[in-house]
Amino acid sequence: MEYRISDKLASLKPSAIREIFKSLTNPEIIAFAAGNPAAESFPTEYIQEKAAQILRESPVTALQYSVTEGYPKLREAVRKRLKDAFGIDREGDEVIITSGGQQGLELVCKVMCNEGDTVIAEDPSFIGALNAFRSNGANVVGVEMESDGMNTEKLEKALKDNPNAKLIYIIPTFHNPMGITTSAEKRREIYRLAKKYGVLILEDNPYGELRFSGEDVPTLKSMDTDGIVAYSGSYSKVLSSGMRIGFLCAPKEIISKAVVAKQVEDVHTNILCQMICESFVTSELYLPHLDKIRALYRKKCGLMLDGIKKCFPENVGYTSPEGGLFVWCTLPAGADLTEFVASALAEKVAVVPGTAFNCDVNAPSSSFRLNYSTPSDEQIVRGIEVLGNILRKY
Amino acid sequence: MEYRISDKLASLKPSAIREIFKSLTNPEIIAFAAGNPAAESFPTEYIQEKAAQILRESPVTALQYSVTEGYPKLREAVRKRLKDAFGIDREGDEVIITSGGQQGLELVCKVMCNEGDTVIAEDPSFIGALNAFRSNGANVVGVEMESDGMNTEKLEKALKDNPNAKLIYIIPTFHNPMGITTSAEKRREIYRLAKKYGVLILEDNPYGELRFSGEDVPTLKSMDTDGIVAYSGSYSKVLSSGMRIGFLCAPKEIISKAVVAKQVEDVHTNILCQMICESFVTSELYLPHLDKIRALYRKKCGLMLDGIKKCFPENVGYTSPEGGLFVWCTLPAGADLTEFVASALAEKVAVVPGTAFNCDVNAPSSSFRLNYSTPSDEQIVRGIEVLGNILRKY
Repeated sequence: MEYRISDKLASLKPSAIREIFKSLTNPEIIAFAAGNPAAESFPTEYIQEKAAQILRESPVTALQYSVTEGYPKLREAVRKRLKDAFGIDREGDEVIITSGGQQGLELVCKVMCNEGDTVIAEDPSFIGALNAFRSNGANVVGVEMESDGMNTEKLEKALKDNPNAKLIYIIPTFHNPMGITTSAEKRREIYRLAKKYGVLILEDNPYGELRFSGEDVPTLKSMDTDGIVAYSGSYSKVLSSGMRIGFLCAPKEIISKAVVAKQVEDVHTNILCQMICESFVTSELYLPHLDKIRALYRKKCGLMLDGIKKCFPENVGYTSPEGGLFVWCTLPAGADLTEFVASALAEKVAVVPGTAFNCDVNAPSSSFRLNYSTPSDEQIVRGIEVLGNILRKY
Repeated sequence: MEYRISDKLASLKPSAIREIFKSLTNPEIIAFAAGNPAAESFPTEYIQEKAAQILRESPVTALQYSVTEGYPKLREAVRKRLKDAFGIDREGDEVIITSGGQQGLELVCKVMCNEGDTVIAEDPSFIGALNAFRSNGANVVGVEMESDGMNTEKLEKALKDNPNAKLIYIIPTFHNPMGITTSAEKRREIYRLAKKYGVLILEDNPYGELRFSGEDVPTLKSMDTDGIVAYSGSYSKVLSSGMRIGFLCAPKEIISKAVVAKQVEDVHTNILCQMICESFVTSELYLPHLDKIRALYRKKCGLMLDGIKKCFPENVGYTSPEGGLFVWCTLPAGADLTEFVASALAEKVAVVPGTAFNCDVNAPSSSFRLNYSTPSDEQIVRGIEVLGNILRKY
């Protein structure tokens, strides 16, 4: 049989990062290409004890079908934390628990976009989100990034040029892949433009709890007096990525449709792990745990930046993140990115070429992404040395 | 802001069953409307011990990101069981682990159907599948059911009338909502027609392990010499529904696209519970556990059918399932289904009106679905008496 694959899936390629991830099972490879949280950041003992307790005390709740919206106590805990830590407390908003932050992004697109509608995104951006939009038949239009976020003049041009734009997708805090944070001023301008053009903002904040230096910048959602921001969060970086637990906070009109869309995707998110998650994030352990992770990444990021300063030639650019998981490096003009990435892999250091994050899949790039949360401290030091040796050829 | 919801979601209603499910938190209601496995069918102690062991011995594997295709050992266990118990062993097929059987159905539709393409389905059929197809913009065309499965002449007519048909969706074994099993002869005819018209069969078999009487009928997938059947299975009815673990076995060309589609929905399925599942279904406990569940449902179904024979007037029709979870009852001509369902609920017995399963959402029905796995034995006896008293009015 000749399989006639749907148009929206026919052209969609597996994420380059997920494919690289498979090759990372080779322990000899230094995994700067991953986006995994550090293994030591998982509260393993707590999870073990709590899983046993829940299965002992509430086995039926933990193992039976549950409601699509999510475990009620976890939804409550999300709302409380959003209010306490992120200034998010708009009447008329609701929360749905999602199967990882990824699902929240996909659901918002499915709810808002017809095939052929446009999603405006930072360029470069998170490949998983861009592919989620494409899998729904949406057209992705990129807006150039600067060191403090999107070029807002170009954002306005994109909004004017694309009257069928339904979403502005943005990772304003510790951007993936760039590691930068959008300034408060630019956030206000992006909000103003979204309101002016009647387009929903999809604020993706999976790293929001991971600030290890600098000052907090208000979330776009905290500015949302008009009900024009959908906010996606995740427990992947602060509890366990394998549990696949995230959430979406958005106007109730959008959440009610996201519930219907989620119902037909997976009915509900794994309930045992929702219960473990709720218990952990409402315990006295959670805030100290966040501090521990921040300290860990502060150290790892510092090691990486120290290495870069020491080993990379001066014509290689890089960002200095205040949180999150990534450093974004840029080769000097004329250097061949593909060759560099291949040379690094030949020396057993995996990095992700910037092309993987482009809104236009055929556009070139001279940048690459480095992750400091996955590798060990020793691997960070050694891997940066290896990359430095290669970079000195350019 | 006025929210412009996408066309495919704008008209989609929450599943009537999931909405009824919310009202079932009232313990006074006898829940014939649910589709939940019996709480006593969960191997709670095993799960508790195994969760502890996995988190002690392999915490990083259990809590870190994993591959989209699923836990390799679980995929292997699925293939082995499909071969041993269901005659499914086609070279060129692959298996992906899904977040419940629901996700497999949704993924196959997303991979195969453009907006406006047709899915041919048994009428009535599983609401979660029909809504998954609708959420992808597919057009659902129903084919009348008989006591041994689809009317295959009408199936051929539907295939002729809908040249844009991409899928035939079928629950041939212990059908939801009807409880019937498609005969081997009809299965062969459906396979022949699918091949003739070049349309993929989506065989949904969540209850396949739950035969408690009668003889096995070969799966459509076991007849698949041409690579035209995608087969969806689930651990919701044999391990835990709250874990959300299912699988899809299909030609590798389809699985490779399903992997991409799943990647953007939830990256991968909860890995801790995939590991627990793999451990259980490959243990010596699994086959005796299946026997235990079958004995449980044999008894509960028997109780319900005995009650029906005793309490329902003769002008009410009903099916006699050989497995699965449901009995399908049909009111005498002229009786008002809506009034009956409301009367039953007023007497604290919840049933699902047949309209919830219609392919044409506006079509009438004179049938209702009863579930025997969720209620206690006492509730089954009492609930059927209550329904019998109401039915005698018609």
